[in-house]
Amino acid sequence: MAMTRELPFVKGHGTGNDFVILADPEGRLDLSEAQIQWLCDRHFGIGADGILRVVRTEHLPEFAEWADLAEYFMDYRNGDGSIAEMCGNGARVFARYLHASGLVTDSEVVIGTRGGLRTTILNADGSITVDMGGASSPASMAEAVVRVGGRQWEATGVVAPNPHAVVFVEDLDHAGDLLAGPPIEPASAYPDGANVEFVHVLGSRHVEMRVHERGVGETLSCGTGACAVAWAARRRLEPDAEGETTYRVDVPGGTVEVTETATGSLLMTGPAELVARGTALLPG
Amino acid sequence: MAMTRELPFVKGHGTGNDFVILADPEGRLDLSEAQIQWLCDRHFGIGADGILRVVRTEHLPEFAEWADLAEYFMDYRNGDGSIAEMCGNGARVFARYLHASGLVTDSEVVIGTRGGLRTTILNADGSITVDMGGASSPASMAEAVVRVGGRQWEATGVVAPNPHAVVFVEDLDHAGDLLAGPPIEPASAYPDGANVEFVHVLGSRHVEMRVHERGVGETLSCGTGACAVAWAARRRLEPDAEGETTYRVDVPGGTVEVTETATGSLLMTGPAELVARGTALLPG
Repeated sequence: MAMTRELPFVKGHGTGNDFVILADPEGRLDLSEAQIQWLCDRHFGIGADGILRVVRTEHLPEFAEWADLAEYFMDYRNGDGSIAEMCGNGARVFARYLHASGLVTDSEVVIGTRGGLRTTILNADGSITVDMGGASSPASMAEAVVRVGGRQWEATGVVAPNPHAVVFVEDLDHAGDLLAGPPIEPASAYPDGANVEFVHVLGSRHVEMRVHERGVGETLSCGTGACAVAWAARRRLEPDAEGETTYRVDVPGGTVEVTETATGSLLMTGPAELVARGTALLPG
Repeated sequence: MAMTRELPFVKGHGTGNDFVILADPEGRLDLSEAQIQWLCDRHFGIGADGILRVVRTEHLPEFAEWADLAEYFMDYRNGDGSIAEMCGNGARVFARYLHASGLVTDSEVVIGTRGGLRTTILNADGSITVDMGGASSPASMAEAVVRVGGRQWEATGVVAPNPHAVVFVEDLDHAGDLLAGPPIEPASAYPDGANVEFVHVLGSRHVEMRVHERGVGETLSCGTGACAVAWAARRRLEPDAEGETTYRVDVPGGTVEVTETATGSLLMTGPAELVARGTALLPG
């Protein structure tokens, strides 16, 4: 038998966006890219979209200055081992883990992420809200179009803060097979590529969406995508709206609500579930 | 927070064919189809191709007559909750679990399955061998063809004991996208459908294969498929072979060896790994 290393983990998801959570309060865990890929491998390992390492912020030299503001830091890694700044569904699952494991007691908890400090709120109904920050639509992203299956739509470019191309369709089936990314023209409007969201309006402040995530393919849910969609929908559907608005956004993996505050912050609220705890037998 | 039920589990795989293993020696676990689907769901649950319930044979009225021959019974369920007779990769993982947990001590262990009694052997190198029984090629399956992308091949029909259509190709890329099942004509040759294996000969008694599993799509590995391929390859490549032959079969998820004994039994040998143990938090 090959040698293995025992690594405690928790698995959780938010609207089907799933994570292996690794408690590492002292910041001693040094996982290789290959080990992260193994943990996220759905057939040969545990299986997840990404890893959430839970570290006390004071133990991360690069972010230690935030230690008084955010006791815990969410070190998020994509399934391929690469570093990502922020993940909205991941932040909800991270907050759920902090509450469920008794590491925090206040309902409002600020966490550190590579994308900055984020406030999370445990709501009375068990859902979790994350302040995702604001969004904007730079002029450089205007007038691009997205093409699928002979159709084309004007895209609303949204930076949230990663780039999104949001298109409003009559029927989500028009998005076709989202395995490959739908082409955007001119490509120069999105020099770093984009997540592409297809949105269908279901009712007043209620939309459904499908998403192609840059470099991944179609996914069950994308937190920044839901925020970009709510932001774009408000501006398209009720350009004169003032004050706070809340959009219900149905994603393939469930439902989230996105509230845009009077000051422009996007608060995403949705479920976060822990589904297992255990010990991974990491190949030596 | 919703109520949850704590259910201990182990996760393991054989050449990427993965399973949630549930220890239930007394046969008291009564999981609903929805609970099995949740356990196998790769985003909302634990994630696996299927479930292996480990029950003492004496506690299963339907199979209790085997209790003296096989102490443990492998109750295999597909990810959709349906019952399957046998799973070769699952049998290796099941045997690994019995050895690793100390439930058995002999290297040779007979297990009960809905497909009959199966002998497993823990080899000195850690690999596990399963006696998969014999195979045959009924006349009713002769002269069918499989078509992909404008090409067509004659299929060798193999019952092992589920139906397989084996085609020999010059290049595995000819199998194309195996998400949908390649059409077989006449369909009447395979009234229950078939797994379709594409085989490329790499050398003496060494082949590589890709497989479309009936009702599933392309998979990383298929135990009965590897056996059907080795059986068909021997008859095609060395029709006059006598005595025991061993074929190396490379599947997308790894490598297995299939030995055909002088009496026609197919012994499949390959890896079986346990990757995690833990507690699932089953939704109430």
